[in-house]
Amino acid sequence: MRVNHYTDTPAESAGVPGVTVRWVIRESDGAPHFAMRVFEVEPGKASPFHTHWWEHEVFVLSGRGHVKSADGTHPIRESSVVLVSPNEEHQFVNEGDDVLRFLCLIPHPSLEGWAQ
Amino acid sequence: MRVNHYTDTPAESAGVPGVTVRWVIRESDGAPHFAMRVFEVEPGKASPFHTHWWEHEVFVLSGRGHVKSADGTHPIRESSVVLVSPNEEHQFVNEGDDVLRFLCLIPHPSLEGWAQ
Repeated sequence: MRVNHYTDTPAESAGVPGVTVRWVIRESDGAPHFAMRVFEVEPGKASPFHTHWWEHEVFVLSGRGHVKSADGTHPIRESSVVLVSPNEEHQFVNEGDDVLRFLCLIPHPSLEGWAQ
Repeated sequence: MRVNHYTDTPAESAGVPGVTVRWVIRESDGAPHFAMRVFEVEPGKASPFHTHWWEHEVFVLSGRGHVKSADGTHPIRESSVVLVSPNEEHQFVNEGDDVLRFLCLIPHPSLEGWAQ
C-alpha cells in the first residue's frame, strides 16, 4: 500500500503551454492495469483537440470549463464525471478564472487491443 | 462522450452500514477496462477489513480518516492518493465529523489474471 498527497508527485509539462500533469499512480508504482494522473490547466488554456486508442475516465476536482468533442461542447465543473471513449476526439478547455484541475485515468499501454 | 455530475448516479448500499457507493463509470457505460466509483462513509463507520485480487486506485475528495493495512494505519485526508495492491488487506475508516468521500477505481472482472 502506498498513501501520499497528490502534490508529493512533481508536476511536469503536459507538452502544451499552461497545462501540467502529475502521474500520481503509474505502472512503475506497481499499478497492474491503469494509471491515475492529475492535470492542471491554467485560465484561458486548453489541452489539444486530439484522439488516441485509449479511453479517459475523468473527475473534475476544481475549476470550470468545457470538454469539446466532435458533436459539440459539454460544460464541466467541480465533481463532473467524463468518459471519453477510445478514438474519440476531445479537448479540455479552462473557461474560469482559476486553475481547472481534474483526475484523468488511462489504461497502461500494454492493454492496447485487449478490449477489442 | 458522456458528461454528468457524480450525484446523477444513484448511491447504493455498499453492503456495510453507513457506506454507500455510486458506480459513476461502469462497464455497461462503455468503459473498456476499469470502473470509477464514489464511496461515502458516514462518521464513525468503515469498510470491512478485506482483500481481493483487484487493486484499488483511490483519491480522497473530502473528509478524514485512515486506511488500515496489514502493516498498520495510514492517515488520509482531502487529496490523498492511495494505491492498494492486489490481494492486500485494507479498510477505509472515517475518523472525522463529516462524510469521508473518495473515488475508488477498479479493473473490470474480465481482467482477472491478465497482469500475472
